[in-house]
Amino acid sequence: VQFTEIEGGVTAPAGFLAGGLHCGIKKDGQPDLAIIFSERSAAVAGVFTRNLVKAAPVLYNQHVLKHGSARAIVVNSGNANAVTGKQGKVDAEAMARTAERCLGLAPLEAAVASTGVIGQTLPIDKIMKGIEKLAPMVSRDGGEQAARAIMTTDTFPKKVAIRVPLSRGEIVIGGMAKGAGMICPDLATMLVFITTDANVERECLHHTLRAAVEPSFNSITVDGDSSTNDTVLVLANGASNTAVIDDLSVDCPTFRAALHYVCMRLAEMIVRDGEGATKLARVTVTGAQNAAAARQIAKTIANSLLVKTAIFGNDANWGRIICAAGRAGVEFDPGKVDILLGDLIVLKEGSPWRFDETRAKELLSRNEVEITLILNAGGETATVLTCDLSYDYVKINASYRT
Amino acid sequence: VQFTEIEGGVTAPAGFLAGGLHCGIKKDGQPDLAIIFSERSAAVAGVFTRNLVKAAPVLYNQHVLKHGSARAIVVNSGNANAVTGKQGKVDAEAMARTAERCLGLAPLEAAVASTGVIGQTLPIDKIMKGIEKLAPMVSRDGGEQAARAIMTTDTFPKKVAIRVPLSRGEIVIGGMAKGAGMICPDLATMLVFITTDANVERECLHHTLRAAVEPSFNSITVDGDSSTNDTVLVLANGASNTAVIDDLSVDCPTFRAALHYVCMRLAEMIVRDGEGATKLARVTVTGAQNAAAARQIAKTIANSLLVKTAIFGNDANWGRIICAAGRAGVEFDPGKVDILLGDLIVLKEGSPWRFDETRAKELLSRNEVEITLILNAGGETATVLTCDLSYDYVKINASYRT
Repeated sequence: VQFTEIEGGVTAPAGFLAGGLHCGIKKDGQPDLAIIFSERSAAVAGVFTRNLVKAAPVLYNQHVLKHGSARAIVVNSGNANAVTGKQGKVDAEAMARTAERCLGLAPLEAAVASTGVIGQTLPIDKIMKGIEKLAPMVSRDGGEQAARAIMTTDTFPKKVAIRVPLSRGEIVIGGMAKGAGMICPDLATMLVFITTDANVERECLHHTLRAAVEPSFNSITVDGDSSTNDTVLVLANGASNTAVIDDLSVDCPTFRAALHYVCMRLAEMIVRDGEGATKLARVTVTGAQNAAAARQIAKTIANSLLVKTAIFGNDANWGRIICAAGRAGVEFDPGKVDILLGDLIVLKEGSPWRFDETRAKELLSRNEVEITLILNAGGETATVLTCDLSYDYVKINASYRT
Repeated sequence: VQFTEIEGGVTAPAGFLAGGLHCGIKKDGQPDLAIIFSERSAAVAGVFTRNLVKAAPVLYNQHVLKHGSARAIVVNSGNANAVTGKQGKVDAEAMARTAERCLGLAPLEAAVASTGVIGQTLPIDKIMKGIEKLAPMVSRDGGEQAARAIMTTDTFPKKVAIRVPLSRGEIVIGGMAKGAGMICPDLATMLVFITTDANVERECLHHTLRAAVEPSFNSITVDGDSSTNDTVLVLANGASNTAVIDDLSVDCPTFRAALHYVCMRLAEMIVRDGEGATKLARVTVTGAQNAAAARQIAKTIANSLLVKTAIFGNDANWGRIICAAGRAGVEFDPGKVDILLGDLIVLKEGSPWRFDETRAKELLSRNEVEITLILNAGGETATVLTCDLSYDYVKINASYRT
């Protein structure tokens, strides 16, 4: 299936409005509050951080998911409302209640999310005033504003939208994300909000999201840290007036492919905007006996500081790649391994392969680098996206809080 | 027991000679070949990398350990002889054979070690000529030279020696190490050589070394990467003419404490000289239900890039500490956790604790930083040593190979 990318992000699908503004959390006056609003009730599904320490909004959203349908998502940036004790819970609820009141929703129809500094109480008065002001302003072309308002150390807003032809009719899926730091397989300080006017049965929406998250948001890494706030939420409001999609529908595979596409595009944007990143690296481990082993090795390579700094320095240091693979905790025969940079063989059956250093440097200088490790032990493959580690990563993170 | 530190490193114990010189591996003319020599046969014990990809010298030394006694260790820096295929094996053997010939030893009496770039064949002719030249030059005051000759990105030679009073008589233990990068729990590109004139039974030497390595070399991390070449070797030659120490000897606890002391001192030096490090951080997790859980949490905090950059930036960002703990894969109740920076409480029972930011900054600015996480769930404790992550780490590693 071919998908056509269109403008608009989360407001591209029919029946969705959005907006963003500065409510006073960020000191630099940048937008820090976003609302996504659906004109009609929408099925909701979500995936959240597996970190043991879960932020208040993550815990709150469990109630919304139980409720099963929602009509709004209210998000603030600049403060994560994480490790904020009982007050954090009260504040998350206050955000939801205020959004519901101002948008005319029933209880539990608004989900919440926060991102930013951990351990500081939300300036809830500012946020409530902000919601009151923003609620009447949400519009069909507020997708860009909303995407900007959830940024923290992101350098560009991340959004995508596609048209998806079904067997009868057409749907649109839109999405926005924020990422940049604390990005690691199994989610990260990563907020992702996806909207669609497809008419998706709730269980199917949940299954489809789970499947789409694995190769996308669970297969990216910036720094190996995963956060207290990671959230992926999808709302499906049926405003396209197409037939219901459930697990057995003829259109289910198309919807699955389309949601996968949107997740992959946003995941790629998150890695490309990794803190201090100058390039994206695609680490593929193939020829593995099983997919879990392939993924574990790819993750270990993708998280290796030595590999990431070598990529930054355009250094074809494949020794670090095989070395990282060797400590992944997965059995393989180092004597059978091939390594390629792009299409250039640098290691063949575990032995150094004479290669053109100039060409290797050229391949590594591109803004997208491909590293492939072939185990020659089976037919399974996994790919993890990562970025290089530069001076700027250190600069950005050495004094984030102050 | 009190130990007195003395000069001399590996040549401080009786009956040990050493030396180092430049044999032509390093381009900058720095020393790159070291020999440690014992005038009499010595019991030998060793611990090696658990990386699946093991360098040729690591594999070779298994034969020496099986042999059970040794009289020399020959080490080169500048080239790791790792992932070098069959030639690597031939070269490691050639290093050992040459050392044995030049020092008048029997087969399998020389252990070998290499550190440096992975995947390049050793310049074995230069090394063999170097051994021929160095062997007659080893001396009682060559400990410093030898420590210098095993350095790679290290900024200072690492050595220690102590006098250890026994129930009757006295022994000396000396040691040297190289580290700096690829340092992670479960060893790292870390070479450690320890000598003693104690008269230690082989099995006891092995047990004592294993026990000493856990809280020292297996509890340090610079960048989470562990290498193909990690080696800790100890030679005990009995030249002190003191009584045999075995597992049941009255002096065994003293010897254990002394070896522990030497390992801890060298481990600390390795972390303090972590690539680009400006300070050392001691991460202690206490009040845990079991030691493995405490260690796992301490390791995860100690390896978190976000924690390490915050330490570099003197930023009391305890949110990153609790967040890293939460993704360690160990169950605990975040609502019971206390966190201290030095003696300053920053989190109490899972809730932010008002603290003096100026004092926190002052504590973090010291060249040794203490982070303590109290789980309040039991009586077990673990400490992991780490360092901060600075611009210079990236600089050093972005173009190491070239």
